Amino acid sequence: MIPIVLRGEVRPGDSLADKLLQAVRDQHIVLESGDILVIKHKIVSKAENRFIELARVKPSSSSKRWAKRYRLDARVIELAMRESRAVIRRKNGVLITETQHGFICANSGVDVSNVDGGKHALLLPMNPDRSARQLHRELKERTALSIPILITDSFGRPWREGLVDFCIGIAGMKPLRDDRGQRDAHGYILHASVEAVADELASAAGLVCGKLNRTPACIVRGYRDSRGQGRARELLRPAASDLFR
Amino acid sequence: MIPIVLRGEVRPGDSLADKLLQAVRDQHIVLESGDILVIKHKIVSKAENRFIELARVKPSSSSKRWAKRYRLDARVIELAMRESRAVIRRKNGVLITETQHGFICANSGVDVSNVDGGKHALLLPMNPDRSARQLHRELKERTALSIPILITDSFGRPWREGLVDFCIGIAGMKPLRDDRGQRDAHGYILHASVEAVADELASAAGLVCGKLNRTPACIVRGYRDSRGQGRARELLRPAASDLFR
Repeated sequence: MIPIVLRGEVRPGDSLADKLLQAVRDQHIVLESGDILVIKHKIVSKAENRFIELARVKPSSSSKRWAKRYRLDARVIELAMRESRAVIRRKNGVLITETQHGFICANSGVDVSNVDGGKHALLLPMNPDRSARQLHRELKERTALSIPILITDSFGRPWREGLVDFCIGIAGMKPLRDDRGQRDAHGYILHASVEAVADELASAAGLVCGKLNRTPACIVRGYRDSRGQGRARELLRPAASDLFR
Repeated sequence: MIPIVLRGEVRPGDSLADKLLQAVRDQHIVLESGDILVIKHKIVSKAENRFIELARVKPSSSSKRWAKRYRLDARVIELAMRESRAVIRRKNGVLITETQHGFICANSGVDVSNVDGGKHALLLPMNPDRSARQLHRELKERTALSIPILITDSFGRPWREGLVDFCIGIAGMKPLRDDRGQRDAHGYILHASVEAVADELASAAGLVCGKLNRTPACIVRGYRDSRGQGRARELLRPAASDLFR
């Protein structure tokens, strides 16, 4: 795991490929075949200008009521509702939604920390798989390497405390590793062995990509499974087979 | 991340400290201060003789009915029920329980893969935090190093496909990293920033500790946060503040 330290903020219109390759050169890192690049969604959202000026958000009376009750920012709640296609739970001041992309997370992933001190909110990328594919393509043009890209966000989980990073966009690798039908060392056929390697890589990177220092990306070196093509939506369980909504 | 390859099976009564230190020596790994040892719960359960002979399990009529309906092994369902203190969901052939320890997972963590080809089931360790503390203590006696121990299991998640490894036992470090009250680079106070580093470490190790090869443990080198003492139960959200049960 090699952290990548970016100089300065990512601004709307910036080329992430430029920024990341510059940072890699500055740190004297030589990208290798087999490297995987994991990046926090926030720099993708910033480059794609997914900022929303909070002063311009007019919360509905429902958002206002609910926000007031739990001392939350009604404008953030309003944005979360607008970015959602379904409310999964809304209770005790916690709003869990299904986003337009299908991710289930708090406040539709609308973020005000690590943005600009409270003036703007930052939405998730419009289409994180597409963002990942674009960066994958640009890095391939510049480096001649096919480097898998994972875009991540920190999500809470039911039943467990604390946030962990999940994969919300992917390019150049498969998000799931399917061992079903293979046999274990005792000859027993493995039934339930689909491993969410993209989420495990995201979580691993979450240890390195800190929230308090400027390391919104890192390289995972030496993991060579799951080559191929895939999309983050493969990580989303269809509502019909989900027991928790 | 350094995988540890064990020679042969772990058997009831084996000393995991012996086995692991032997493997580390065989691989010419020199343990360092700051190393974290992550191990799959299965070798802990085996050493602690948490085997159950399936032929001796008499399923209740309820377990039989339900297993038959979904073509499952009624004896495994019976064990899962016995190991649980609450059923969270039982639908579509999926049984999600809260274990006696408080973990919420499929079939109370009762396992038949990677055990012995179907003759025995393997239960979770009785008290994984205690198991972790014991191994931590034994390694300290032998190596003079205070090596944090994480014991992991593969869990499914609501809403997302695929299993990832979670921490179910810990010693020598804190499972959560709490950044609340700190300020981001823009001066904005971080509200929701408790990071489940133990789960992120477990997931990272899950990439290395494969299910099909004999690598039930690995060393994470270079992660130095979260020193202190903690318990895996800190990762369990109290039912009262959980929106999904």
